[in-house]
Amino acid sequence: MGIVVELDGKRDKKPSFDDLTAIVADDMKRVNQQILTRMESPVALIPQLAGHVISAGGKRLRPMLTLASAKLCGYHGERHVTLATCIEFIHTATLLHDDVVDESKLRRGMDTANSVWGNQASVLVGDFLFSRSFELMVEDGSVKVMGILSSASARLAEGEVMQLLTANDTETSETAYLDVIKAKTAQLFAAACRLGAVVADRPKIEEEALDGFGMNLGVAFQLIDDVLDYSAKQATLGKTVGDDFREGKITLPVILSYRRGDKEERAFWQRTLGELEQSDGDLEHAIQLMAKHGALDDSVERARHYGSIARDSLGIFPDGEIKDAMISLIDFCIERPY
Amino acid sequence: MGIVVELDGKRDKKPSFDDLTAIVADDMKRVNQQILTRMESPVALIPQLAGHVISAGGKRLRPMLTLASAKLCGYHGERHVTLATCIEFIHTATLLHDDVVDESKLRRGMDTANSVWGNQASVLVGDFLFSRSFELMVEDGSVKVMGILSSASARLAEGEVMQLLTANDTETSETAYLDVIKAKTAQLFAAACRLGAVVADRPKIEEEALDGFGMNLGVAFQLIDDVLDYSAKQATLGKTVGDDFREGKITLPVILSYRRGDKEERAFWQRTLGELEQSDGDLEHAIQLMAKHGALDDSVERARHYGSIARDSLGIFPDGEIKDAMISLIDFCIERPY
Repeated sequence: MGIVVELDGKRDKKPSFDDLTAIVADDMKRVNQQILTRMESPVALIPQLAGHVISAGGKRLRPMLTLASAKLCGYHGERHVTLATCIEFIHTATLLHDDVVDESKLRRGMDTANSVWGNQASVLVGDFLFSRSFELMVEDGSVKVMGILSSASARLAEGEVMQLLTANDTETSETAYLDVIKAKTAQLFAAACRLGAVVADRPKIEEEALDGFGMNLGVAFQLIDDVLDYSAKQATLGKTVGDDFREGKITLPVILSYRRGDKEERAFWQRTLGELEQSDGDLEHAIQLMAKHGALDDSVERARHYGSIARDSLGIFPDGEIKDAMISLIDFCIERPY
Repeated sequence: MGIVVELDGKRDKKPSFDDLTAIVADDMKRVNQQILTRMESPVALIPQLAGHVISAGGKRLRPMLTLASAKLCGYHGERHVTLATCIEFIHTATLLHDDVVDESKLRRGMDTANSVWGNQASVLVGDFLFSRSFELMVEDGSVKVMGILSSASARLAEGEVMQLLTANDTETSETAYLDVIKAKTAQLFAAACRLGAVVADRPKIEEEALDGFGMNLGVAFQLIDDVLDYSAKQATLGKTVGDDFREGKITLPVILSYRRGDKEERAFWQRTLGELEQSDGDLEHAIQLMAKHGALDDSVERARHYGSIARDSLGIFPDGEIKDAMISLIDFCIERPY
């Protein structure tokens, strides 16, 4: 096979999600089918509640990463479909528990499962989806795959606990924040990608390259997600501006503003996020402070840094439309409207 | 090996937990050690919170079942220690989530984790222990073991959701109740026992015998647990009388009383458990109604039925002190003070 090395990495197209969506469309149809089949249970509330979250959509980014990575590695079997389903179940279980933990009422503009069926059902159906994801791994039968996914799950849970502990702590460092988002978000991205190389039985260097791609894409993705929570244009994305602010989550835009601010500004952050004493106009003031210190722009810059690493991780793979689409996905994740 | 078949099953000793405890004492020491090592995490709150629940003690009944079953099967390796730890982690994760779901303040006379650290931390540390239990299975490396445990976990979660759905429904049938306790309690007992035969690589008939022992012991255990929630002497056990009543849980003593009661009595159950409108004296009245209809005694009778099946399940194993101790455990579970 001839390998064309692309040295400058320039592309003319606008970054988009569509190329990758098209490339994995057939596989994704089977994943969606399997999601429906495998969330079945004699206990009717389980598919009902799980279906509510899963059908609420979202981009199916994580399973898509498994499908794309497998394709990039030239895989032609069926295991990636089950593993992509598995990844989506782990992610959905996390969403259910997150919404309970955050007491969220809305997700992607729809009522959260906990606001419809209560916290209790959400916790337990989350547990079911976790367990079902492990059943799916067992069906795949590879101990290596199970090792990757079980340790990603444990890291994910650790990340969620870390996030809980840094909540309302305005003195959280950028390093601590990065540790949280690596664990709670990027680990599952990394595992999703790594599995593509594993099912295709590719050498270690490709496994690690895809892990690195997923990990750095995940960090960039979460950084931008945290920026979007303060940026006005995001209303178009079906997200609510200011959720993180209201919950006192300490994300990078806050960390940068706090550390670059004066005594009075730090008192503001401490009151609003540390003590959660918020009144009208506080969110707007927070956004002004972020603008003053370039905190949002610089957070995006940080995301670009991780995006670059993600792109370089793919360097060892031959050029072609799959690799292009995966690179376009990095750019899309970073250049979402903010 | 000479097999002595005991036909009448008579034993003179008072049923006790001590024989089995003594038999597995060395192994259990290693399980306790591994529990401490494996709940470690760089996130300090995790071992702190998990340690609170795990050190609160309890009888370590489930891991003990794995250890005893492995011994009964003549196993001499080390895998049963890791798998017993795994079983205890699954159980602990469930306890953490249960206490959140039930909004419990006390467990075994101590503050629950959720009342000390909040619901959020309890949900997430429960998730961590679930994931860690899967990591432990993966270390064991047997796909068969992982299949048994992942499907027991999924059933367990289904059982918890079913229980939530039957809560406050006074018309729940005995069959529906049995389905719930089989799923939420007995499945994990069954898996814990089955693993003993699996690690020892024993034939299918022994695996199934131990599964049957665990399943029926688990049903008997839960039936008695539900009786104890209404029986006065249990104060000695460090449990609170009336928890199930206050939460509107529909257990067998209630189901029998409701179905044997007249119109007025059913209205009482509907008001107190269906609508959770309770006032002083209601719990005492509930206990009187149970006495009138022999609901507690008959629930114990039902437990004895499952205890008999559990005992017969062990019939194919050679007599000896391990088998005797396991049978004594059945009797102990059933004849606990009530």
